[in-house]
Amino acid sequence: MTNYDSKEYLDKVDAWWRAANYISVAQMYLKDNPLLRRQVSKDDVKVHPIGHWGTISGQNFIYAHLNRVINKYDLNMFYIEGPGHGGQVMVSNSYIDGSYTERYPEITQDEAGLKQLCKIFSFPGGIASHAAPETPGSIHEGGELGYALSHATGAILDNPDVIAATVIGDGEAETGPLNAGWFSNTFINPVNDGAVLPILYLNGGKIHNPTILERKTDEELTQYFNGLGWNPYFVEGTDPEKVHPEMAKTLDTIIEEIRAIQTEARKGAAEDASQAKWPVMIVRIPKGWTGPKEWNGEPIEGGFRAHQVPIPVEAGHMEHIDHLTGWLNSYRPEELFDEKGYVKEEIRAISPKGDRRMSMNPITNAGIVKKLDLADWRKYALDTSIPGNIMAQDMIEFGKYAADLVKANPDNFRIFGPDETKSNRLNEVFKATNRQWLGRRDESYDEWLSPAGRVIDSQLSEHQAEGFLEGYVLTGRHGFFASYESFLRVVDSMITQHFKWLRKSKTHTDWRKNYPALNLIATSTVFQQDHNGYTHQDPGLLTHLAEKTPEYIREYLPADTNSLYAVMEKALAAEDKVNVIVTSKHPRPQFYSVAEAEELVKEGYKVIDWASNDNGQEPDVVFAAAGTEPNLEVLAGISILHKAFPNIKIRFINVVDILKLRSPKVDPRGLTDEVFNQLFTTDKPIVFAYHGYEGQIRDLFFDRDNHNVYIHGYRENGDITTPFDMRVLSEMDRFHIAKDAALAVLGDQAKDFADKMDETIDFHNTYIRENGDDIPEVLNWKWENIN
Amino acid sequence: MTNYDSKEYLDKVDAWWRAANYISVAQMYLKDNPLLRRQVSKDDVKVHPIGHWGTISGQNFIYAHLNRVINKYDLNMFYIEGPGHGGQVMVSNSYIDGSYTERYPEITQDEAGLKQLCKIFSFPGGIASHAAPETPGSIHEGGELGYALSHATGAILDNPDVIAATVIGDGEAETGPLNAGWFSNTFINPVNDGAVLPILYLNGGKIHNPTILERKTDEELTQYFNGLGWNPYFVEGTDPEKVHPEMAKTLDTIIEEIRAIQTEARKGAAEDASQAKWPVMIVRIPKGWTGPKEWNGEPIEGGFRAHQVPIPVEAGHMEHIDHLTGWLNSYRPEELFDEKGYVKEEIRAISPKGDRRMSMNPITNAGIVKKLDLADWRKYALDTSIPGNIMAQDMIEFGKYAADLVKANPDNFRIFGPDETKSNRLNEVFKATNRQWLGRRDESYDEWLSPAGRVIDSQLSEHQAEGFLEGYVLTGRHGFFASYESFLRVVDSMITQHFKWLRKSKTHTDWRKNYPALNLIATSTVFQQDHNGYTHQDPGLLTHLAEKTPEYIREYLPADTNSLYAVMEKALAAEDKVNVIVTSKHPRPQFYSVAEAEELVKEGYKVIDWASNDNGQEPDVVFAAAGTEPNLEVLAGISILHKAFPNIKIRFINVVDILKLRSPKVDPRGLTDEVFNQLFTTDKPIVFAYHGYEGQIRDLFFDRDNHNVYIHGYRENGDITTPFDMRVLSEMDRFHIAKDAALAVLGDQAKDFADKMDETIDFHNTYIRENGDDIPEVLNWKWENIN
Repeated sequence: MTNYDSKEYLDKVDAWWRAANYISVAQMYLKDNPLLRRQVSKDDVKVHPIGHWGTISGQNFIYAHLNRVINKYDLNMFYIEGPGHGGQVMVSNSYIDGSYTERYPEITQDEAGLKQLCKIFSFPGGIASHAAPETPGSIHEGGELGYALSHATGAILDNPDVIAATVIGDGEAETGPLNAGWFSNTFINPVNDGAVLPILYLNGGKIHNPTILERKTDEELTQYFNGLGWNPYFVEGTDPEKVHPEMAKTLDTIIEEIRAIQTEARKGAAEDASQAKWPVMIVRIPKGWTGPKEWNGEPIEGGFRAHQVPIPVEAGHMEHIDHLTGWLNSYRPEELFDEKGYVKEEIRAISPKGDRRMSMNPITNAGIVKKLDLADWRKYALDTSIPGNIMAQDMIEFGKYAADLVKANPDNFRIFGPDETKSNRLNEVFKATNRQWLGRRDESYDEWLSPAGRVIDSQLSEHQAEGFLEGYVLTGRHGFFASYESFLRVVDSMITQHFKWLRKSKTHTDWRKNYPALNLIATSTVFQQDHNGYTHQDPGLLTHLAEKTPEYIREYLPADTNSLYAVMEKALAAEDKVNVIVTSKHPRPQFYSVAEAEELVKEGYKVIDWASNDNGQEPDVVFAAAGTEPNLEVLAGISILHKAFPNIKIRFINVVDILKLRSPKVDPRGLTDEVFNQLFTTDKPIVFAYHGYEGQIRDLFFDRDNHNVYIHGYRENGDITTPFDMRVLSEMDRFHIAKDAALAVLGDQAKDFADKMDETIDFHNTYIRENGDDIPEVLNWKWENIN
Repeated sequence: MTNYDSKEYLDKVDAWWRAANYISVAQMYLKDNPLLRRQVSKDDVKVHPIGHWGTISGQNFIYAHLNRVINKYDLNMFYIEGPGHGGQVMVSNSYIDGSYTERYPEITQDEAGLKQLCKIFSFPGGIASHAAPETPGSIHEGGELGYALSHATGAILDNPDVIAATVIGDGEAETGPLNAGWFSNTFINPVNDGAVLPILYLNGGKIHNPTILERKTDEELTQYFNGLGWNPYFVEGTDPEKVHPEMAKTLDTIIEEIRAIQTEARKGAAEDASQAKWPVMIVRIPKGWTGPKEWNGEPIEGGFRAHQVPIPVEAGHMEHIDHLTGWLNSYRPEELFDEKGYVKEEIRAISPKGDRRMSMNPITNAGIVKKLDLADWRKYALDTSIPGNIMAQDMIEFGKYAADLVKANPDNFRIFGPDETKSNRLNEVFKATNRQWLGRRDESYDEWLSPAGRVIDSQLSEHQAEGFLEGYVLTGRHGFFASYESFLRVVDSMITQHFKWLRKSKTHTDWRKNYPALNLIATSTVFQQDHNGYTHQDPGLLTHLAEKTPEYIREYLPADTNSLYAVMEKALAAEDKVNVIVTSKHPRPQFYSVAEAEELVKEGYKVIDWASNDNGQEPDVVFAAAGTEPNLEVLAGISILHKAFPNIKIRFINVVDILKLRSPKVDPRGLTDEVFNQLFTTDKPIVFAYHGYEGQIRDLFFDRDNHNVYIHGYRENGDITTPFDMRVLSEMDRFHIAKDAALAVLGDQAKDFADKMDETIDFHNTYIRENGDDIPEVLNWKWENIN
């Protein structure tokens, strides 16, 4: 039997580490002659060597030792590379363990393959300097820092056998989101979920500064992590001879501790579990370890100067080539590579095998995707046979469906949020499940808290909710994050990074499986934040994501409950998408039947016959609406207009999938000009009410023929006020809409009507300031079909 | 002399507290009869009572005790209300201390004024439910949570006498940004700067959940804060009789400790200071303290159910009015208000006086604004007499000016960043100053670190850099935050909230002073992140901010050094603006003279005569460029086009202030259609190269006559590649631009030329993948005037 603790075995770990370091340095500088088997010439060296040396060697060290414990304990483990750069780490190690060649057969394990691997690294048309989608074993690119712990936690939920070995750079450890991530231990169930093993790599430098945590003492860090409920273990040193056995011993202790926690907890039910004091590893090994000690009289190893390329060697500057070759040879490549350039067999032999290799762990390639059971929402559909007759709260209704989804998918569907699940009216969900919370409980007060539950919303952090969901879907599971619309903008950039991952996984690999969609429910929207005021009002996520590559983005604005049901069914079944669903939580009249909702979602829009009287002819005016309040106000505006001017021929188009209206020049799904012109005419006035900013609609119409469009969107005039006044402030209310349409169709003939609308608006303005409530005319309004 | 520790004095503090609580509850429910001096009728009660009770009473308690220590120690202190809601706290306390009436004379201190105060709270046309711009004493609204400590720290920098009493809700304490904020103690110099006193208010509930920190033991929290380098003090209880003296004693201890730290440190120089272990106060008093204990058999006080309006009383539902009046009377209003409705004189007497009142502290109204000495950049201007002849790095050059600004403004100008100051090439700044860092130092390795310095960039957190700058400018000082362009998006939402503050301070108050501009330098831009790859590429901040109210937003895209200088002079002198300056850090040819740069900034754009040959006639094609690479590529494209077709009449417009091109319908500063048509013609082809997303330009042209525009912006096709290939990937390179223009002007006659351009692009594609460098034709290109 293998003695994993023997000097002999640790020597092999050391050889693996040196091989990984050698390959990593070679990737940075060389495009040919990777094993230095002939004199290095300028043609062997890259014109612009690029890479981040600082984090490499330390991470390679950690990686090699993780392989050792995987073997020793037969672990199901994968690797999250928190440090932003240092993409060579996962590339080099997966190259040695053979998985790189399995994914990319042209990168053979011999010298020719190694040459190619070196060339493509950080090279035009090649592979990224991060742990990017093209990197085997990665689910976390880390170019934007802060999300390592959130992703790791999302990944191990409902994966009880998995350990996410999560390296956190000491730079990343200073970001807000990463610090929010330490609280993840409040939500990990030791029975149902796997484990996150944070490895805080305190290497002493960022880009140009020391790091805050690195300058703390072990005692301070011990207090810090104990306070956070983690159990810290330190590994420290500069001499590999001494650090190898220390690292091995400490990792053994940690793995055994994780197992002990789980074994103990698993004697009982998940519902009876309590929060574990999980181990965290703190590794104090130098930045740029084993690299150049100094350059030009300044120290390199051990701090920020090791961050990027430490020695100035490039094709055009070969003066210091000897330093580079000296550095490479310090790894004793003759002990590492055979004559054909293979990493020697006895070194490769210590690799974990098959899926036990971290780079081939199925979890890192969308897991073993278990399709979502989509349940059946139609049984909850509302009766809209008289449009607008009944009132309902879309999010409350949707909660019934969400509860069924929870029941139908007990281990692969989760709901995330920042303490807003109930505020967002998903109460029905709690008939089917609880909030997962492993912290201390107070039975006399707490509501729906349990150690095991399908909702995780007990940390007030959009970063965590988003990061958990990302980690969950990147490992092949399903779910959504429901948030106040405006505060989704807190994670604007995280969503962008997730989209980027999706795009690159499709365009830069052929082996990545499809990911379940990332579903973002934006509710408590700008027009429903009258009482919370201006800080809570921002619909700009729509424009933000509309800028990204169309194939990966969907923006749905269901106007009522049945539409929301139909949207969610589609969104939850989708793959490789970021779906934004803007929806309502307050009582609103219900308009669309199941059939209408289905068509609205299938086509993205629908001409609503009961709200149109053009009867197949060219209308005098086209109304369009995307969003709950836009839909409501346009219908109310149509009512008013129709009563005043029954001869005006009206067409009303409800739009659910707003991006579908874009020109095919911009979006391959976009309606053709022919269809668009049939719908919107080429010159008749269009009154377009939109939930978001108006620029998005101007952009959308730019390439179309008909520019005779009157846009009523959010105009950044928010305030604390009444629900209807929120619309008036943006002139997105029925009175402004009816006035606009009348003037557009009738010109001066509509002057009296327009004046009357203005008077009504003035009356409204006075009334709400006196009564604090909307005018009866609005509160009592009911839709009557015009056809 | 007053005995601040006597039972008698604490009884007055208690009376103040009860008065504040009474007024806060009344604001939530009542619009008339605030002192219950007649039977309460439904007309006295709001139709929709709105407010957040949970945090109120505890904060009022803290506020009253802060007043006590202000008096006892003659403190210069102000209040930051971290908890999102609970706007009544600062309103009620400033009403009692008289400052509310000083700011709003119509809100008198008698019953009539109190009635009005109650009515307008959270009421249409009234005041926000947050500590909003209209709230005296506030610099921090807190609707979006997480920034309390960053703002507090920014505010006390260079304000050595000030203490920022910063209440942090236990919900906010779970956010990422707030957790990043605990590291602020690394940057506070006890000699030159003031103090932040964090008061962590663990009240036990968020919206619908317990909080993570509240469920930790005192021992865990002690370890946590010790590890973070703060010195924790606890105050805990439910019985006011007992908590008053404990609070007084603990606050005394804390204030004396802050003074001792400062006194000791100030015996030496700022440069010799070290990091202090500042006190942090942890207050465990119940959520909804003194309010209803329970409702419908469920507990209210002490947890999440106290969060919002706890008793269901409203104008239309008066069934439980007795509970409300009972609650109000529990504060013994007869002891608090005199017959005219004034808070009794003996209670008001314990208010701090004049500017010592936290609500009137000058720091909270843009401080005592000291105008920035703008120094003189013209001496550093580059010689562009031969346009494009010399190369320079705009950010390096700007660093010289920034260094002078640092020297000219030693105590009211600062530079912030997330470990990127050097990467963003501001090296010259470090000839004038250092990085401020109070942590442990390693002289053998560290660079430009000092306990006192004008740059704060040693925490890798955009949230902190943005929050520090916001706190600094909101208190009347000047500075900028230089960031990688893409990672400014991490703080999208923070920037929005700052803009919202600016807008409301102008539209909702007449007493707020103007704020120095918030200057965001977006460098290391999308087109210069070739080597860092796709994660680092996002120019979308431009579209994001272009959606906000135009009066408060400026977006500058200087194409070279002299333009950047001129922009920065204007940006730094501006008030009530968010300025985004997108600028370059890499070597680029220099084009614009001082005079051109000045005109570019003054007008926002300029027809560049040496790059135009239309000579006052209508051109055949208009080129426009906004941004460094757009400018460069358009000029190179013009070169190519002009050589091939010398007869084509070309006009080139460089645009620095992109929003100036908008229609006056959208932006009051926008060019009139007349001027716009003179510049861009009504129908000639326009080739527009833009640094950002193309939708922003489509939006901008929507309302204009000429839609014959060929937009070349960022197309989300980023990758790791060469600098020039980044442009090719977006078709924003000279070859695509020249081809587009030729085809637009000449149609089929330009077919051969277009083919040649395509061939060149193909050659480029092959060449870079082979050589890792751009083609010689690009590298060696030089501008020659065409006129």
